[in-house]
Amino acid sequence: MPDTKKQSFSEYVPPKVWRWNKGDDSKFANINRPVSGPTQEKELPVGKHPLQLYSLGTPNGVKVTIMLEELLAAGHESAEYDAWLIDINEGEQFGSGFVDINPNSKIPALRDMTNGQRVFESGSILFYLAEKFGAFLPTELAARTEVMSWLMWQMGAGPYLGGGFGHFYAYAPFKIEYAINRFAMETKRQMDVLDKRLAEHEFIGGADLSIADFAIYPWYGAMARGLLYEAKDFLDVESYKHVGRWAKQLSQRPAVKRGQLVNRTWDDKGLEERHSASDFDASSRLI
Amino acid sequence: MPDTKKQSFSEYVPPKVWRWNKGDDSKFANINRPVSGPTQEKELPVGKHPLQLYSLGTPNGVKVTIMLEELLAAGHESAEYDAWLIDINEGEQFGSGFVDINPNSKIPALRDMTNGQRVFESGSILFYLAEKFGAFLPTELAARTEVMSWLMWQMGAGPYLGGGFGHFYAYAPFKIEYAINRFAMETKRQMDVLDKRLAEHEFIGGADLSIADFAIYPWYGAMARGLLYEAKDFLDVESYKHVGRWAKQLSQRPAVKRGQLVNRTWDDKGLEERHSASDFDASSRLI
Repeated sequence: MPDTKKQSFSEYVPPKVWRWNKGDDSKFANINRPVSGPTQEKELPVGKHPLQLYSLGTPNGVKVTIMLEELLAAGHESAEYDAWLIDINEGEQFGSGFVDINPNSKIPALRDMTNGQRVFESGSILFYLAEKFGAFLPTELAARTEVMSWLMWQMGAGPYLGGGFGHFYAYAPFKIEYAINRFAMETKRQMDVLDKRLAEHEFIGGADLSIADFAIYPWYGAMARGLLYEAKDFLDVESYKHVGRWAKQLSQRPAVKRGQLVNRTWDDKGLEERHSASDFDASSRLI
Repeated sequence: MPDTKKQSFSEYVPPKVWRWNKGDDSKFANINRPVSGPTQEKELPVGKHPLQLYSLGTPNGVKVTIMLEELLAAGHESAEYDAWLIDINEGEQFGSGFVDINPNSKIPALRDMTNGQRVFESGSILFYLAEKFGAFLPTELAARTEVMSWLMWQMGAGPYLGGGFGHFYAYAPFKIEYAINRFAMETKRQMDVLDKRLAEHEFIGGADLSIADFAIYPWYGAMARGLLYEAKDFLDVESYKHVGRWAKQLSQRPAVKRGQLVNRTWDDKGLEERHSASDFDASSRLI
């Protein structure tokens, strides 16, 4: 059986030059392109707050909204923000205004209205906010370096979880055993790296909550809680007990609860947009 | 023909719980594991210089050696370093000493002997060195933020190029059309993002050479120069003219030339280890 499968794989010989076949039937065929840049003129809305966030409540988007809610909870009033929805299934990431902020056409993207600065890539936004508010990134060298190493770890590891495992296990139009095995193994290894770290430290960076937690929790915390790709059993996520302990602890923080609701479109608990702290009061969302 | 292929793919039904099959015949089967941590007790060697680098001359390793050589060329004498070879095909990344520095068991990893600090993840090492020496990362907010966004861009984009396209196009034991198409498209899009950026700026961050260049050049510069995965024609890399201009410009810098030779094992131009500036003099390597 495996031999037959490999036989049929090896029949494919890549052409000399790759060509875009728009008939690809992947779930994301309409948003994946081999070229960059805007496909349409479209300005972005701007609200009244210092920070304008253009995002979607996926794990990468939630990294930033969790941090913003934590900053506000810690008393940083100038972290007030408008969170606008970018519907990637509608191609809004290819609008000219969005591309001006993020030439890579991915959420999240931030404009700081106090100085006009654009910031793109979730890791860069976390770092920018940490420096701007002097929060969640230690200045003491050893603690700072650990946080930055783990933040960078997430940036490099996450694509194997999301673009690798998640894509081939949950979204690709057919199940490819080799690819699922490759990325399941790597995802489990990454979970184990975190599990050993969190066996010895309360938070990823050490004793204190930091931008490393904000980056890692929306992906690996969600995985530990069985919320990603219906892979709870397949990856035996409950075996990573220390990740589970940490994920549960973070999930109970009010600011984390709020952050996870922002720009969330797939259930009636979420807020499509967030423009005020009182937006969360409108329902029993946080219960 | 495509229908037949999909038919045979869809015969695969993932099991309820994933199990490690050690009989996997991927090129990297012996170095990919679903668990983390050391497999053997092994201390790391320590040389006489302030910085001890444990690495291999792959693109991620070369990011750091290029930066160290640029720092030395700029007069930062305390950037002197010993570069020790970590042979990943021999599993040296699973030695206990290496895991103490990088619990993720990937090269490069750095120990700063002046303070004992460990640093892992290439992006974190670049950032650490930039802060330590006050070099290649602007302090002015706008320029600093651009550099950090592009540095983070590389950290998140690179896995699609290396672990995605490179793996499925060059290393996987058989050619999987769907996976090759997915990652070829994304790699081309990434090249186009850079091409538009470099059409308007001399360097990635703007007017000045920065850690964003050090991160991006070893992957995307090498791709533009036709040096990765024998994919020069397949991805039509010469169409990204501005990436090509920038890559050529960087490739002519003496420090970049030196950095690319460190921990390089696959030809007789490389230095397996580097312990002194004079190590480069031993042959006609730099001609």
